[in-house]
Amino acid sequence: MQPITDIKQLFRHQRQVRAFANRPVDDATLNEVLEAAIHGPSASNAQPWRFIVVRDPEVKAQLDTLYEAAFAEQYGGTPPPRGQDRQPLSEVPILIVACVRVRGRANIATGASVYPSVQNLMLAARAMGLASGITTLHRLKLAEVHEVLGIPEGWDTAAIVLLGWPDRRYGPNRRPPLETFIAHDRWTDPPPRA
Amino acid sequence: MQPITDIKQLFRHQRQVRAFANRPVDDATLNEVLEAAIHGPSASNAQPWRFIVVRDPEVKAQLDTLYEAAFAEQYGGTPPPRGQDRQPLSEVPILIVACVRVRGRANIATGASVYPSVQNLMLAARAMGLASGITTLHRLKLAEVHEVLGIPEGWDTAAIVLLGWPDRRYGPNRRPPLETFIAHDRWTDPPPRA
Repeated sequence: MQPITDIKQLFRHQRQVRAFANRPVDDATLNEVLEAAIHGPSASNAQPWRFIVVRDPEVKAQLDTLYEAAFAEQYGGTPPPRGQDRQPLSEVPILIVACVRVRGRANIATGASVYPSVQNLMLAARAMGLASGITTLHRLKLAEVHEVLGIPEGWDTAAIVLLGWPDRRYGPNRRPPLETFIAHDRWTDPPPRA
Repeated sequence: MQPITDIKQLFRHQRQVRAFANRPVDDATLNEVLEAAIHGPSASNAQPWRFIVVRDPEVKAQLDTLYEAAFAEQYGGTPPPRGQDRQPLSEVPILIVACVRVRGRANIATGASVYPSVQNLMLAARAMGLASGITTLHRLKLAEVHEVLGIPEGWDTAAIVLLGWPDRRYGPNRRPPLETFIAHDRWTDPPPRA
């Protein structure tokens, strides 16, 4: 994928990628991606984040095992095969585990203090020509994932981001017309999709 | 605020704004902001969104009443005063209510299918020199908000975004050093803040 400098084009070119080139990501590039993440908004500007950058093959292998178990659970024992389009987590160059501090029970609004940062991270990556993918499926094995990573009480893991240089060229993402998703002043049902 | 064309700078200049100039936002500008939102990622690319663009003074007034009640509840009867820094919702040029389809009980991961789009929206706004603010406090009066807006069963409202031209100049957002938020391979506690 080519780097992107036009902001309007940036949103149109984010793609979910699960297979990466065998090419390392240098620290300066990685840090720029992480800097974008920590400039995201959060409730009361509390910045309740911790991003665990996983490159250790042993840790990646442990996460991969748990992830495949979650995948099998989600897909009733027959997850989509690993292969050209879905690289094992153990082979993904970098996994970034996005953690968020929680007080009491996490709910949808807890996500408002972490997913904007995750989105910043993925957009910054795309701008530099990196590819990323996001998954929350690890949550089916949350206790085990937290044990592997040593995540303490009071923190939740909102997502795992897969990051690396893309394995191929990816075109823009495609969406139905804007009116499919928009209502004015009060709820109206969407028009039937073509 | 000046428009921004440099992507790296964009993340550093998003600010939470709650007071806006008395200047309308034209439809072309609004639509570009909304287009950014609908190009966000979502679980299984399901695009489970609906964005209600509220400009009707009557609807805004009803939301304002509920919001102030939520604010009072949150702050024990003495919310921060409305005024120069915190405009009543009824006076904000545009409110965008971000809705997400839920199956079963919403949880933090439900947010992964809507807050990235909300973040796209706010970033696109900032790029064009618009200001935005995000709140989830309406959720303390969720049933009433849903009744005002006519939101059906099976949908949740993840956030209300305040949108308009800013009332003043806002500088960059500020963050502690990157290492404050980063761990490598496994959880480590953050260094003490300076």
